[in-house]
Amino acid sequence: SRASGVSIPTIKFYLREGLLAAGRRTAANQATYDESHLRRLRLVGVLTDVGGLSLAAVRRVLEAIDDEHLPLTEILGVAHRALDDPWTITDSAVPAALIEVDLWLRARQWDVTPDAPARSTLATTLVALRRLGWEIGPSVFDRYADHIDAIARDELAYVAGTGSREAAVEATVIGTVVFERAMAALRRLSQERHSRDLIGS
Amino acid sequence: SRASGVSIPTIKFYLREGLLAAGRRTAANQATYDESHLRRLRLVGVLTDVGGLSLAAVRRVLEAIDDEHLPLTEILGVAHRALDDPWTITDSAVPAALIEVDLWLRARQWDVTPDAPARSTLATTLVALRRLGWEIGPSVFDRYADHIDAIARDELAYVAGTGSREAAVEATVIGTVVFERAMAALRRLSQERHSRDLIGS
Repeated sequence: SRASGVSIPTIKFYLREGLLAAGRRTAANQATYDESHLRRLRLVGVLTDVGGLSLAAVRRVLEAIDDEHLPLTEILGVAHRALDDPWTITDSAVPAALIEVDLWLRARQWDVTPDAPARSTLATTLVALRRLGWEIGPSVFDRYADHIDAIARDELAYVAGTGSREAAVEATVIGTVVFERAMAALRRLSQERHSRDLIGS
Repeated sequence: SRASGVSIPTIKFYLREGLLAAGRRTAANQATYDESHLRRLRLVGVLTDVGGLSLAAVRRVLEAIDDEHLPLTEILGVAHRALDDPWTITDSAVPAALIEVDLWLRARQWDVTPDAPARSTLATTLVALRRLGWEIGPSVFDRYADHIDAIARDELAYVAGTGSREAAVEATVIGTVVFERAMAALRRLSQERHSRDLIGS
């Protein structure tokens, strides 16, 4: 507990929930833990504290990490699905918007799996904006797509360069969770600075 | 209810909570509502459904919108603060990281207010990554900053070009909430497509 900064009740809870492997028992009520336990504890902490993941979602991510036969691209998918917030808009216009989004993705040659949840997120974004009277199509995303694509390409190149599978997996999961928040923060700071010049005080 | 797609109990709840102005009373148990009510209903829907804002946060955003003396840049700040998730990491390393983030922002000439919550988000990101053993400084954000800055500049230029205050306010609030989710979705889709080439299947 002292080495990780995580409280004893929380560690016991993680052990009970299977998020942390049991230590090596040294006495009836004593066990020792090694560096791998510490690392796992910190990972669970980041996923829950920074990513806001539920325990069920954390468990799915850890299972993917621990499955040594799972390709890295699959682990990325698991991280994405774990992060995906439930989207509460149900609107009969969503299926048609999804087709528009798919055509837009195809025109950009962004080749993604048909069940990628982010497709529905974009479609629901369109529907939400149209409900507000914005007459827009998927081209509203053009402003973002090339920049985001350059970022994602850099990120994946970094993951590819990490060498070991363990480091790559960690960079993938952590990168997805942590840098999503960092990007949102950077956007707000940049919006603030430009708001002074562009829309006056 | 029929025109907005929002259920009668939900509308009554919004009226009770002061998120929607009362309609013009036409009988003891009847009132009529106009286009401005519909518009407000849809806005509350997007803020709660897409933005995941609490009712208290929605109320703060609506008050800012309704305050005609509030400068647009302030409304942007209110939208940012309403969106800001509570960050649950408390770590004695955060204050030092915040100073590093501020120096990095200054070197980039990103002039932001000292109480912008996104500064702390970046600092806490650094602390979280360091806990995991990543030996990094704020330069880890360099990969993102220029791209995000170009996006934010475009967004604010769009807001500046909307003409009326009402349209600009709506574009600011909606844009902050909705396109943050859209950007995250675009990043995931782009990561997925690049993962095939860069880290194999």
